[in-house]
Amino acid sequence: MALKLYVDRMSQPSRAILTFCKVNGIDFEEVKIQLAKGQNFSPEYAEVNPMKQVPALVHGDFKLFESHAILIYLASAFSGVADHWYPADLQKRAKIHSVLDWHHSNLRRGSATYIFNSLIALAFGLPLNLEKAAEGEKILIASLAKIESFWLQDDGPFLLGNSQPSIADLSLVCEVMQLEVVETKDRDRILGPHKRILKWVEDTKNAAAPHFEEIHSIMSPAKDALLNLKSMAAKKEAESPGKLA
Amino acid sequence: MALKLYVDRMSQPSRAILTFCKVNGIDFEEVKIQLAKGQNFSPEYAEVNPMKQVPALVHGDFKLFESHAILIYLASAFSGVADHWYPADLQKRAKIHSVLDWHHSNLRRGSATYIFNSLIALAFGLPLNLEKAAEGEKILIASLAKIESFWLQDDGPFLLGNSQPSIADLSLVCEVMQLEVVETKDRDRILGPHKRILKWVEDTKNAAAPHFEEIHSIMSPAKDALLNLKSMAAKKEAESPGKLA
Repeated sequence: MALKLYVDRMSQPSRAILTFCKVNGIDFEEVKIQLAKGQNFSPEYAEVNPMKQVPALVHGDFKLFESHAILIYLASAFSGVADHWYPADLQKRAKIHSVLDWHHSNLRRGSATYIFNSLIALAFGLPLNLEKAAEGEKILIASLAKIESFWLQDDGPFLLGNSQPSIADLSLVCEVMQLEVVETKDRDRILGPHKRILKWVEDTKNAAAPHFEEIHSIMSPAKDALLNLKSMAAKKEAESPGKLA
Repeated sequence: MALKLYVDRMSQPSRAILTFCKVNGIDFEEVKIQLAKGQNFSPEYAEVNPMKQVPALVHGDFKLFESHAILIYLASAFSGVADHWYPADLQKRAKIHSVLDWHHSNLRRGSATYIFNSLIALAFGLPLNLEKAAEGEKILIASLAKIESFWLQDDGPFLLGNSQPSIADLSLVCEVMQLEVVETKDRDRILGPHKRILKWVEDTKNAAAPHFEEIHSIMSPAKDALLNLKSMAAKKEAESPGKLA
């Protein structure tokens, strides 16, 4: 049965599912849906995902969206995926659901709100909103502290003290990687104090090598393009104050 | 193995897991953690759930939080739970994960933000924040529209067109029931246009009778108490403007 993944590599959950498939040798067709070009709003894409977001999956006749649901489906429906990604043991599996659920209202919400309102909005022709960015940063920083103090435990390098990564590590690390597009001083201010998180990101990269790096190779040119937009916006703002916020 | 559920019946996910256990004949001890009294911040409770939220589960030595993870665990770990609550079929299960994941950033976020900032904050001694309440209401209304136009389908009365309820119906309907505490005119303004949602709430109540009603019997006295707090706050505001927002 043909597997199609509808993704934008600028989207952190898209990168998580692409990395998962590559690491686990799952064959798929990558269908690029460029959010900044509004391709997610086409009538054709509404047939794939009526919520008009990426990522989405089509597997034969079966359609699915929401990245955590997709990761769980991929880990369950394809043979050959090692157990550590999504353990069969009920209690181990439950803990992974717990991390993934927590992610939605904490790390994801904080990170996406901060980065969108402080930078990525410009790629959508929208003004920055520094008040909302600050709200997002507060949630992001509290979430990183919880990852460092609670979700990363002493027993092993991955979430929940695991010795090998799960789908939760992929999902959350791809979220942290989104900070690669913001100014280096901002990234360092936010991530710098969290040595353990930085090590966890490296460990996850290594466990998913070389695919993780290949899929994230978009981050560096994206950062250049976004910071260029930001400096143009700042120039316009200086010429005609009040138009951007 | 003893099962303890740490809950506050004023919390919608707490009500979902209580209802699920009662309907499925799962024995448990209900440990009441009153959020408005700050009981979730005690050092004892931090041992149960370091995130200091309800609900949480302790089953023998196993601890778990996040209500969706708890519902999935309960449906999987206890024999005798009918398949429709959390189907074994991978694709049916994946669709339920998709609803639950969507819920976090849509219905839950909108509803909780709206109700907390327009009313429940007062129970925590906090001021109302009408700007945030309006932001929440916008997300809530968009979410209700998506439930009505997409998640409820023609084939059956429950989410995804199912003929019997799943854990997703319980979780989302308990969220909608949170609107029972707001002023009737506000509830009717928000829910009134959604006849299909109102029918779905009734169908879920009936499928989970009589436990659903019993567990939600807290809503009516809670509404009286909250609206009383609101009218006292309005009186204070009239006497000394600007202190409350």
